[in-house]
Amino acid sequence: MTDAADLSAAEAARRIRAGRLSAAALMEACLDRIARREPEIRAFAWLDPAAARRAAERADRAGLADRPLAGLPLGVKDVIDTADMPSQYGSPAWAGHRPRADAAAVALARRAGAVVIGKTVTTEFATRHPGPTANPHNARHTPGGSSSGSAAGVAAGFFPLAFGTQTAGSIVRPAAFCGVVGYKPSLGTIHRAGMKVMSESLDTIGVIARSVADCALAVGAMTGRDLGDPEARPARPPRLALCLGPAADRAAPETRALLERAAEACRRAGAAVEPREMPPVVARALDLHGHVMNMETAQALAWELDEARAQLSAELRERMDWALSQPPAALDEGRAAFAAARAAFPAAIEGFDAVLTPSAPGEAPEGLGWTGDPVFNALWTALGVPCVTVPAGTGPRGLPLGVQIVGRAGEDARTLAWAEWVRQAVAG
Amino acid sequence: MTDAADLSAAEAARRIRAGRLSAAALMEACLDRIARREPEIRAFAWLDPAAARRAAERADRAGLADRPLAGLPLGVKDVIDTADMPSQYGSPAWAGHRPRADAAAVALARRAGAVVIGKTVTTEFATRHPGPTANPHNARHTPGGSSSGSAAGVAAGFFPLAFGTQTAGSIVRPAAFCGVVGYKPSLGTIHRAGMKVMSESLDTIGVIARSVADCALAVGAMTGRDLGDPEARPARPPRLALCLGPAADRAAPETRALLERAAEACRRAGAAVEPREMPPVVARALDLHGHVMNMETAQALAWELDEARAQLSAELRERMDWALSQPPAALDEGRAAFAAARAAFPAAIEGFDAVLTPSAPGEAPEGLGWTGDPVFNALWTALGVPCVTVPAGTGPRGLPLGVQIVGRAGEDARTLAWAEWVRQAVAG
Repeated sequence: MTDAADLSAAEAARRIRAGRLSAAALMEACLDRIARREPEIRAFAWLDPAAARRAAERADRAGLADRPLAGLPLGVKDVIDTADMPSQYGSPAWAGHRPRADAAAVALARRAGAVVIGKTVTTEFATRHPGPTANPHNARHTPGGSSSGSAAGVAAGFFPLAFGTQTAGSIVRPAAFCGVVGYKPSLGTIHRAGMKVMSESLDTIGVIARSVADCALAVGAMTGRDLGDPEARPARPPRLALCLGPAADRAAPETRALLERAAEACRRAGAAVEPREMPPVVARALDLHGHVMNMETAQALAWELDEARAQLSAELRERMDWALSQPPAALDEGRAAFAAARAAFPAAIEGFDAVLTPSAPGEAPEGLGWTGDPVFNALWTALGVPCVTVPAGTGPRGLPLGVQIVGRAGEDARTLAWAEWVRQAVAG
Repeated sequence: MTDAADLSAAEAARRIRAGRLSAAALMEACLDRIARREPEIRAFAWLDPAAARRAAERADRAGLADRPLAGLPLGVKDVIDTADMPSQYGSPAWAGHRPRADAAAVALARRAGAVVIGKTVTTEFATRHPGPTANPHNARHTPGGSSSGSAAGVAAGFFPLAFGTQTAGSIVRPAAFCGVVGYKPSLGTIHRAGMKVMSESLDTIGVIARSVADCALAVGAMTGRDLGDPEARPARPPRLALCLGPAADRAAPETRALLERAAEACRRAGAAVEPREMPPVVARALDLHGHVMNMETAQALAWELDEARAQLSAELRERMDWALSQPPAALDEGRAAFAAARAAFPAAIEGFDAVLTPSAPGEAPEGLGWTGDPVFNALWTALGVPCVTVPAGTGPRGLPLGVQIVGRAGEDARTLAWAEWVRQAVAG
C-alpha cells in the first residue's frame, strides 16, 4: 500500500474528497516522514506537530468534500504571514513575530481546503543569506534558495505542496536543485498582501510540488483560474525556442549537455525546437535586474536598516548600502527597461509556444553557505512571465537537474501544459 | 508673531534646522490647534499628545540640523503601519492592532526627520465606508476620502504634512474638498511595504500639505528624488491640455465654470491651453478601473472575508461578493487595458506639458455618510501618472474647489512645478 505521503496532491485530495483518506491520516503520514528526516534536512522555520494534527482534524470535521485542496498539508515559506504561527522572515530582527492575520495567499489556500503544516525556511528576507536547510538528495549540498525549506520539504515528502516566492530565481532554482517542480506564475497572479515584500516590481508568489499537475491544481484552486489539466495530452507537439539566455556562458557543461539532450528528446517526441536568442531590448532587463531588486529592497527594509541594523547579515547590510548609494534615476531606468522588455518579449518568441532554457547553472553547489546563482532565472522574473521547472535527470555528482519552460505573460495554463509535455519527452 | 502651526513645512523645517524653532515647540503649537478643533473635526484614529510631545523632544535631542523634514509633525493615514502606535485600517476587525515595525514610508519619513504625530482616519481599508471625520470648512460636509483625516487635519492646521493613499481618488479628492494640496506621485515612487495594500495595480502612497512645495519637499526627502523647487518660476509658461475626461458629464456646474475660469487665467498668465479629449484606448482604463480595484481587493481581504466577515461593513461585503463572482479573465482584461492606456497616454498628450482637469465633481457633498465620487481621479490613478490638486477658490456653498494637474509617468518634478504655476495663475 502506498504511503499517503507519497501520493500526488491531486490524488490525495481526490481520496480525501471521496472519504477514502482523512486529512488527519495524510498529515500523520507527512509528520512521520518529517520525524525521520527533518533533523538532517531542517526544512522548517516553525513546526508544531500537535498543532498540525489538530488543524487536520479540524479540517476533517469541517468537511472537505467540495474543496479542491482538500486536506493537503501545505508548507508556507516564512516570508508569508500566518495568523496561527510565527512569521519570522528568516531574520533575527523578526524573531517571535506573530502576525494578526493570514496573508491573502494563505487565506485563499485555506479556503480551498489546504492545511498549513508549518513555516518553511527562507533565506534572510528571501534575499541571499542562507538558512540551515540541506538538500534531501545530499545533505552536504544546498537545496537552493530563497525558498529553501519549501523545495527541500516537498522533495523529502514532508508535504505535497508549498508556497515559494521568487524575486530572481527563488522558486525555480531550489525546485530544480531538489528534483521537484517549481511554478512561478505570471506576475500578479497571487496577491502579495501579508507577504514580506521586498521588490514590488519582481516579487512573485508561486508553488513547489512533485508534479506540474499539482502546481496547476494549487494555483488554480487559490485564484479561481482555470489552469487546465497539464497531463491531458495537447493536440499537437510544441514549437520550442531553445535559449540559454544572455548568461549562456555561466552554464556548467552538464547543463549545456542537458539542454542539448532535452532538445533532442523533444524533437524525437515531435516538437519543433530551434535556437532563439533574446534581442538586446529583452536581454537588457537582466543587466538592470540587480538595480531594481536591490533599490526596491532598500526602501522595503527602511525600518530594519534604521532600527535593527545589527541583526541584519553583513552581506545584506553591504548590499543595501550599495543600493542606497545609487541614484534614483537608476531605479527608473531599470523599471523602464523591464517595461520595454515585457513589451518586446512576445515578438522575441514569435512563432514559438514557449522557451526551453536552463533552470540553474548546474547541480546544487556543495556547502550550505551559498544557495547558488539565479542568473538563469532573473531575466524571466523581470519579464513577469510564467516559468516552470521540471526534473530532467541528474548531473555528474548524482544531484538533480531541471529544465525550465517559460511562456508569455498570462499564458500560464499553456505554459504548464508544455512544461509537462517536455518533462515526459525528456523522461523518455 | 506667526503661530508655528501656520508655517509651511519648508519654513518650519528651515527654522528647526537653524535652531530658531524646536520640534517640541512646533508640536506644541499643533497640539494646541488640535485641542481646540479635534472634537469637531475628528481627524485622528489615534492620538496620544504626551507621546507626540516625547517624540518631538527625542527628535530635538537627536539633532535635526541635517534633516530635510526636521521636526515636522506628520499625520499618518491609518492604513500605513507604525511600530509605536496602533494601526487599525479603519476596520473593527483590526481594533487594537499594534504592528511590530513601521511601514517603509514611515521609516523613510522618520529618517528624514519627521515626527509622527498620530494616525489619521481612513475609510474602511481605504475603500468606501466612511469614518467620523468632518470637513474643517463646514463640519456638516464630508472631508472626502479615503484619506479623510489626513486632508482635514492638514486643512485644520493639526499638522503640516500627512500621508495619504490613492486607489481611485483618495488623495486628490479629499485634498480638494478641504482646500489643500494633494500629490499622488507616479505609481511606485514610495514603497508600499507595511501598508495595508488592497489593489496592487493601483494603490499609491502620496502626501497632503498646504503647498505644492511642501509636497515636493516631503516626497523628495523620503525617496532621495530631486523634485525641484516648484516655486521657482519656470523658464516658460506651460502648454496645458484642458480635459474634463471621459466622465465630463459628471461635473457640477461650478466645476465646469471653474475649469473655464482656470483655463482663462492660465492663458492670461501666458499658457497655451487647448481642449484635448482622451482617445478610447486611454479612456477605457476608467471603464475597467472598478473591476481591477475590487477584484484585487477581494484577494487582499481573503482573511478578513473568511475570519472577520461580520466586522466588515455591509457595503464592503456586498462589493467583495460581487468581485468574487467576476471571472478572472475580467481582471486580466482590466490590467491589459491599464497597460495599453499607460503606453498610449504620452502620445495622447503629445505637445502638452500637463493636463488640466477637475479634482472632483464639485464641492464636498453634505453629510458624513459618503465621501464623494472619485470619477475624476480613477483614470489618472489607473495610468500611474503624477497628479496634483491645488486650491482654486470656492463653490456656491463657500466650500473649497480644486483643479488637478496631471503629468506623464516619472515626470513628477515637472508636474509639481506646473501645478504651482497653475495655482498662482488661478489665484491671480
